[in-house]
Amino acid sequence: MEARTIRIIGLDPGLRRTGWGVVDSDGVRLIYVASGVITPPSDDDLAYRLRALFEGVCGIVSSFKPAEAAVEETFVNENPRSTLKLGQARGTVLLAPAMSGLRVAEYTPNLIKKSVVGSGHADKTQIQAMVKFLLPKAKFDSADEADALAIAITHANHRASAAVLAAHHLKVART
Amino acid sequence: MEARTIRIIGLDPGLRRTGWGVVDSDGVRLIYVASGVITPPSDDDLAYRLRALFEGVCGIVSSFKPAEAAVEETFVNENPRSTLKLGQARGTVLLAPAMSGLRVAEYTPNLIKKSVVGSGHADKTQIQAMVKFLLPKAKFDSADEADALAIAITHANHRASAAVLAAHHLKVART
Repeated sequence: MEARTIRIIGLDPGLRRTGWGVVDSDGVRLIYVASGVITPPSDDDLAYRLRALFEGVCGIVSSFKPAEAAVEETFVNENPRSTLKLGQARGTVLLAPAMSGLRVAEYTPNLIKKSVVGSGHADKTQIQAMVKFLLPKAKFDSADEADALAIAITHANHRASAAVLAAHHLKVART
Repeated sequence: MEARTIRIIGLDPGLRRTGWGVVDSDGVRLIYVASGVITPPSDDDLAYRLRALFEGVCGIVSSFKPAEAAVEETFVNENPRSTLKLGQARGTVLLAPAMSGLRVAEYTPNLIKKSVVGSGHADKTQIQAMVKFLLPKAKFDSADEADALAIAITHANHRASAAVLAAHHLKVART
């Protein structure tokens, strides 16, 4: 089993607001590093809003130098136009850590809730309370930031349990 | 009215296949420069497929040095999962020319068909025939390539008519 600390960035993509959160994990303990929200200018052309988002994520990756990234599998909205917009932001957010060669894991909102709160039906308030409990030093103002930290925590838990199972020559089913 | 030649890249985004086509326009004549299809490896993680797509478009932009870009406003599919995938590819394709500071115009499939064939209900075969007619030197094997060239032609026509109207102090409605 590994004991070294891994730095993880969690990302909650959105064209108006993309939450990000960085945590360190040694497989047992979690330490809050930083978090925030990227808000591209909304009055610009789409391509340049995406550029601001891309440069924002690239800037955070190059400042905090995470080793791995985790991104929420965006909720599929019933409105196709909203889904397309989310997809555009999501593609940009996935691309940024890949440009630095990071592994980019993806987790469904359901799995994130289960992993952090213990129930797939947790609401925003429960997620924020649990993120605050798991990362007492975390400072966040918004749900997007808490969600991004929850994604990072989920990835830390999953990679730790995968390492335990690997040490016992077992396979982990990731669904 | 301007007479100088402008180089335009047209892009038809898709995660499996992204068509691209470069044309020169002096406001009257159109000249075929190059075209092709970017096909990211389909067995890679999504973030790395998007990276291959991004690097593909960036490579073409830096090779052919277009001054302006035009991207198809992707058809909104009824399947939300497909729409999300298209959105991810589209965000990546919009981002690439924006990273080089190009203006990135967007046109609906309907407007492209109207602009190239004269009818908003033209089919793939009619588009290919008309692209071949307008760009006799064009070599293309696929519908994606022809579509990308049709997008570039649409942008050439629109910017030319906008210039004429501007010269007469008129406004052009772009819908």
